[in-house]
Amino acid sequence: MKLLRFGPPGRERPGLLDAKGRIRDLSSIIADLSGSALDPDRLRALGNLDLHKLPLVESEVRVGPCVGGVGKFICIGLNYADHAAETGAAIPGEPIVFMKATSAICGPCDEVIKPRNSTKMDWEVELGIVVGRLARYVDVANALDYVAGYCVINDISEREFQLERGGTWDKGKGCDTFGPIGPWLVTPDEIADVDNLSMQLSVNGHRYQDGSTRTMIFKPAFLVSYLSQFMSLHPGDVISTGTPPGVGLGQKPPVYLSPGDIMELEIAGLGKQKQTVIDEGQGR
Amino acid sequence: MKLLRFGPPGRERPGLLDAKGRIRDLSSIIADLSGSALDPDRLRALGNLDLHKLPLVESEVRVGPCVGGVGKFICIGLNYADHAAETGAAIPGEPIVFMKATSAICGPCDEVIKPRNSTKMDWEVELGIVVGRLARYVDVANALDYVAGYCVINDISEREFQLERGGTWDKGKGCDTFGPIGPWLVTPDEIADVDNLSMQLSVNGHRYQDGSTRTMIFKPAFLVSYLSQFMSLHPGDVISTGTPPGVGLGQKPPVYLSPGDIMELEIAGLGKQKQTVIDEGQGR
Repeated sequence: MKLLRFGPPGRERPGLLDAKGRIRDLSSIIADLSGSALDPDRLRALGNLDLHKLPLVESEVRVGPCVGGVGKFICIGLNYADHAAETGAAIPGEPIVFMKATSAICGPCDEVIKPRNSTKMDWEVELGIVVGRLARYVDVANALDYVAGYCVINDISEREFQLERGGTWDKGKGCDTFGPIGPWLVTPDEIADVDNLSMQLSVNGHRYQDGSTRTMIFKPAFLVSYLSQFMSLHPGDVISTGTPPGVGLGQKPPVYLSPGDIMELEIAGLGKQKQTVIDEGQGR
Repeated sequence: MKLLRFGPPGRERPGLLDAKGRIRDLSSIIADLSGSALDPDRLRALGNLDLHKLPLVESEVRVGPCVGGVGKFICIGLNYADHAAETGAAIPGEPIVFMKATSAICGPCDEVIKPRNSTKMDWEVELGIVVGRLARYVDVANALDYVAGYCVINDISEREFQLERGGTWDKGKGCDTFGPIGPWLVTPDEIADVDNLSMQLSVNGHRYQDGSTRTMIFKPAFLVSYLSQFMSLHPGDVISTGTPPGVGLGQKPPVYLSPGDIMELEIAGLGKQKQTVIDEGQGR
């Protein structure tokens, strides 16, 4: 299933794509794609619905982030060997973990804001994992039982804030709109092999990132298990699993985003994102 | 005012201390101490209530974290010059920012869990700032207008997870129960000078931390302004402002927590915390 949330920011309703790719309104069935509604068993039960009985939603509606009530937005750094190389970093011995502010979350095609004083705004196409069930100290072998589904994430980053302003990376990762999530929460049954999904990102039509989850160092099952050793994972937590090569920081010379730039992202089977960069002060 | 939340974990109700230090049930007035209820104007209006009309709550009730629905749990590292010295770190040129997982939040006297494989569990008494109003790019001069109040926080840390396992600090800061918050959310009108509050922490009766917010490097008003340059601060966001000297890591030799140890914390005017360390696997 391809699940999604549609409507104005903060007032999204749950929906589901039908066989023709049209949005069906799920709000008579579940309140939101959040919390206990993300339990994998409950999501599977949605597959038995007679979609013809659910209202059709106009196709021009805004699509919001594909999960609501995100408690934690956990990210893995340098998780593709070739991306680590392009940033000049060593391949990590175990996952690098950092957090994005949940207030950074936005829809997959919302405008993204270049923060005041930003000079090094960058992109990162990433595979997102949405947690569906409370996970504590889970084994790698069972870890994917705790996953509600997968999605596209743009882990937008401000490299000067992240790397040159002292302390951890979090300062350059959590700016407002730095976390487009979606369009779809795709349930695991729709993904033949999560460890072999092609992923691309273009800016203004130029393809900068063209990778595959095949080259991830730490795979989704390992990451869910690993993180659950350090903190409980709750339904609606989102894990962004790192980016393949081709970020702006890795270009020679580096390339950063400016207002008016358009980012387009895609992961095979998980849908597309498209964001226009706007200046802080615009669109408020 | 001294506001608080009481009742079982996850089902806390809002309350207020009366002149005799008894808890009055506020749940007929506000749904929770969260979100828009934290607006400083709305909190001030609670001061006009006739407390005698509000139900008394039995004094043995569990006290929960003093703010609900926390969206971001933002922490400042090495924010006391003498603490930076004891950890061997340089005094930072600007605030070091990291995040604690919101799933780490617990009540001020709840048991705290020593995680599986933890060998270096440590304490940090800290002044907490609770955001009351949406703050974006606010000036230092106005920053405290966005504050709902202050509280005690124990920024419990696992030093091996934090410092020896690669990546940022977040891995050793967000374990379950690593964020006791409370007992009270104290409104700013009750605090004569937030930059001059004494703070102590003892373990098993031995006083390890005995400091004052006087020696903070970056003060609350600066921190709210500073953070708001990087991300929107929302009502219910919590900022933990760093710890004075005397953490376990700074002892010679270092001292870490074991099951059965009892931590007692206090900040002048903000109340006391007391936590017993239990082993992971106990109390679940």
